Amino acid sequence: MTNGKLILLRHGQSKWNESNQFTGWVDVDLTEKGEAEAKRGGELLAQEGVLPDVLYTSLLRRAIRTANIALNAADRHWIPVVRDWRLNERHYGALQGLNKAETKEEYGEEKFMAWRRSYDTRPPELADDSEYSQTNDPRYAELDKVPQTECLKDVVARFVPYFEEEILPRAKKGETVLIAAHGNSLRALVKHLDNISDDDIAGLNIPTGIPLVYEITEDGSVVNPGGTYLDPEAAAAGAAAVAAQGGK
Amino acid sequence: MTNGKLILLRHGQSKWNESNQFTGWVDVDLTEKGEAEAKRGGELLAQEGVLPDVLYTSLLRRAIRTANIALNAADRHWIPVVRDWRLNERHYGALQGLNKAETKEEYGEEKFMAWRRSYDTRPPELADDSEYSQTNDPRYAELDKVPQTECLKDVVARFVPYFEEEILPRAKKGETVLIAAHGNSLRALVKHLDNISDDDIAGLNIPTGIPLVYEITEDGSVVNPGGTYLDPEAAAAGAAAVAAQGGK
Repeated sequence: MTNGKLILLRHGQSKWNESNQFTGWVDVDLTEKGEAEAKRGGELLAQEGVLPDVLYTSLLRRAIRTANIALNAADRHWIPVVRDWRLNERHYGALQGLNKAETKEEYGEEKFMAWRRSYDTRPPELADDSEYSQTNDPRYAELDKVPQTECLKDVVARFVPYFEEEILPRAKKGETVLIAAHGNSLRALVKHLDNISDDDIAGLNIPTGIPLVYEITEDGSVVNPGGTYLDPEAAAAGAAAVAAQGGK
Repeated sequence: MTNGKLILLRHGQSKWNESNQFTGWVDVDLTEKGEAEAKRGGELLAQEGVLPDVLYTSLLRRAIRTANIALNAADRHWIPVVRDWRLNERHYGALQGLNKAETKEEYGEEKFMAWRRSYDTRPPELADDSEYSQTNDPRYAELDKVPQTECLKDVVARFVPYFEEEILPRAKKGETVLIAAHGNSLRALVKHLDNISDDDIAGLNIPTGIPLVYEITEDGSVVNPGGTYLDPEAAAAGAAAVAAQGGK
């Protein structure tokens, strides 16, 4: 049997990536640059012949639109789609909406980096009546309670079991699965796939719009640890740019 | 229980609508006007508070993109999606790719109108090696054989059973279902919903991009025969424009 594939695709630049704000579950749209990144991501899939059989997305516009644009560019707009909140970005708590540089200045480098990259430090909770809360958003009606903040460990706890139950079995059957998601939900998945320690995951950054492909055997193991970026040079530059966020 | 709703949405103007060519299963894209129509369709849904719980689309780009754009405009981009070939446009056989005005001139008014509007007249078959054939298209791999031509009766035969089994039960449960499809697949559905005769369906034209809403009771009957267009004036003008096709 042919090995399956997982394609991890982080959404293209969003309006709050551009303005350097913490986003989390706030449903901001892509910028024009983000749309172009999504298109380029789809062109890479077509060019390399890595053609998705099925799409999984979060419930957030920036991931959904990235997938739509990429699949349209790869001539795979017609594949089945599954959307689930468990692929959502990490909920950034009370940081949602705040400017990253200002936050760093106000709270100091140490706290800022702990909130962004520590495995189990949650930012302060977002108030239910904040304009950036999702408490009354109909797309989360099935949840007992919408999160008010999350650390990366919380994202691992919600996303990895869903991945194991719903997504991995398709790859084990030889399917190519496109996962269109977010910086931190994809970090949670990569931590799991590459068995990265709680400490070392802090140093991992995933660039926007560049497909990262893992080949998966019938028994679910990874053939190429670390995955393979379809455009390695652009990926290295993109990861460095993510790491540098918080500067002005 | 609240009644369910079916929202029928014909894709916005496609490149071959614009150039007056028969399209069928050829996967042409929307024009900019078509994108604007789709956006306006989504704005009408939001404005009238007719918010889809689930989306059904064909496997064709013009319907898929219309739905994506409309749902994004209505802030419902996150709803579940089901795609099925049974919602596809009628396969137009050997007419696919031909200019409508030239076809009318070559074959005469009578034959032209029979191919376009008669219930059970199929156009000549499309050759498997035509550039407009879908014989080797991976999206139809599950079909024993891709159609080489269809009349409206054939579309009714493939779409209505699927509708009854997969879509109608959701409306009976009170859900609002968006059906993003095509001129002739939607005519097939309206024929069924409104119990229109094989002769009378010839006179029915569905405009592009304007949501047509049917209210459905728990037992599956239609509350408002004929349905309700969310923008009746634009719908009347649009239907007249469809009827006039074939002119130069």
